[in-house]
Amino acid sequence: MNFSSRLLENAVNEFSKLPGIGQKTALRLVLHLLSQPSEDVGRFSESIVRLKKEIRFCKICGNISDAEVCEICTSPKRDKTLICIVEDTRDVMAIENTNQYFGVYHVLGGLISPMDGVGPSELNIEPLVERARTSPVQEVILALSATMEGDTTIFYIYKKLKDFPCKISTIARGIAFGGEIEYADEITLARSIATRVPYGV
Amino acid sequence: MNFSSRLLENAVNEFSKLPGIGQKTALRLVLHLLSQPSEDVGRFSESIVRLKKEIRFCKICGNISDAEVCEICTSPKRDKTLICIVEDTRDVMAIENTNQYFGVYHVLGGLISPMDGVGPSELNIEPLVERARTSPVQEVILALSATMEGDTTIFYIYKKLKDFPCKISTIARGIAFGGEIEYADEITLARSIATRVPYGV
Repeated sequence: MNFSSRLLENAVNEFSKLPGIGQKTALRLVLHLLSQPSEDVGRFSESIVRLKKEIRFCKICGNISDAEVCEICTSPKRDKTLICIVEDTRDVMAIENTNQYFGVYHVLGGLISPMDGVGPSELNIEPLVERARTSPVQEVILALSATMEGDTTIFYIYKKLKDFPCKISTIARGIAFGGEIEYADEITLARSIATRVPYGV
Repeated sequence: MNFSSRLLENAVNEFSKLPGIGQKTALRLVLHLLSQPSEDVGRFSESIVRLKKEIRFCKICGNISDAEVCEICTSPKRDKTLICIVEDTRDVMAIENTNQYFGVYHVLGGLISPMDGVGPSELNIEPLVERARTSPVQEVILALSATMEGDTTIFYIYKKLKDFPCKISTIARGIAFGGEIEYADEITLARSIATRVPYGV
């Protein structure tokens, strides 16, 4: 692209480093910001700098938090004996949005992926074992993605936790609600038949 | 969305004010920034603040510029008697990318649009008339969008400039290169027949 200004080029380059943002989109976003009042642009950049500077990770569950311990871990309404293990903050938000889960979380910060050079020691797994050892945990739910990395991580954590006196479960896999059988992939369909559940309300 | 952190929520809200960025995309971008080193995040926000603070508009053509007069207007290689009138910086960049135009520009900063409350006085039109009066302009090319706003603006500028001794032209409209006749809309097709050009290389 032919920029008429180094400042513009610089800002566009910074924006196009973001995932899924190409040069054209970056230019559109930057020109939009340029057309906004200075206070708005200041608020925008301030929000990012403050986030990066002040954000903390909950020392119990590892989730993003404003304080030393996150809101979920401090809430008296939450069942501390039920721990849901997830990959990252987005998964916490997705589960919170269901309004159906009242336990606490443990955020791994990734999945075991030898291809990307991520081993168990890079993840928040040791503190999880410590947590299972020191606090009265009754059940651990492994809510990880149904990918090879997810399955590897599930297996690793299972081996680490299997000698503790707590139940270990994974979320159910099968045909999604609204999903049509004819379009389901073979693995999902075969698994959902094999793990069929008794019917009756 | 259920945010576990006010800082995160704030940053996501700021990002989702950008055009075409919803809450989910905003969250993805913010979490990506959060995973980057502090210097990179600093450079990102700095680039926006500096752009907003230091950017100027060329006092001749109105284009975005680092200096008082932009690179195109100062270039001795450019034909100053040929002015291409465009809506905004993006159009300048699009035309520059063709590498086929060697005149200068005049950036209006928008199009006349009574629906959006944009009249001629909000645009960079008066300086254009002044420019045509005081400098030796031979031709003015109106390269505005083929929309109602574009046509209105073209007509307004034509009326303002028609008594000056310079040629006034608009860019050619017709079937795009690679465009198939059967998929062209009726107006474009009818116009491209009416304004047919003699063939012969």
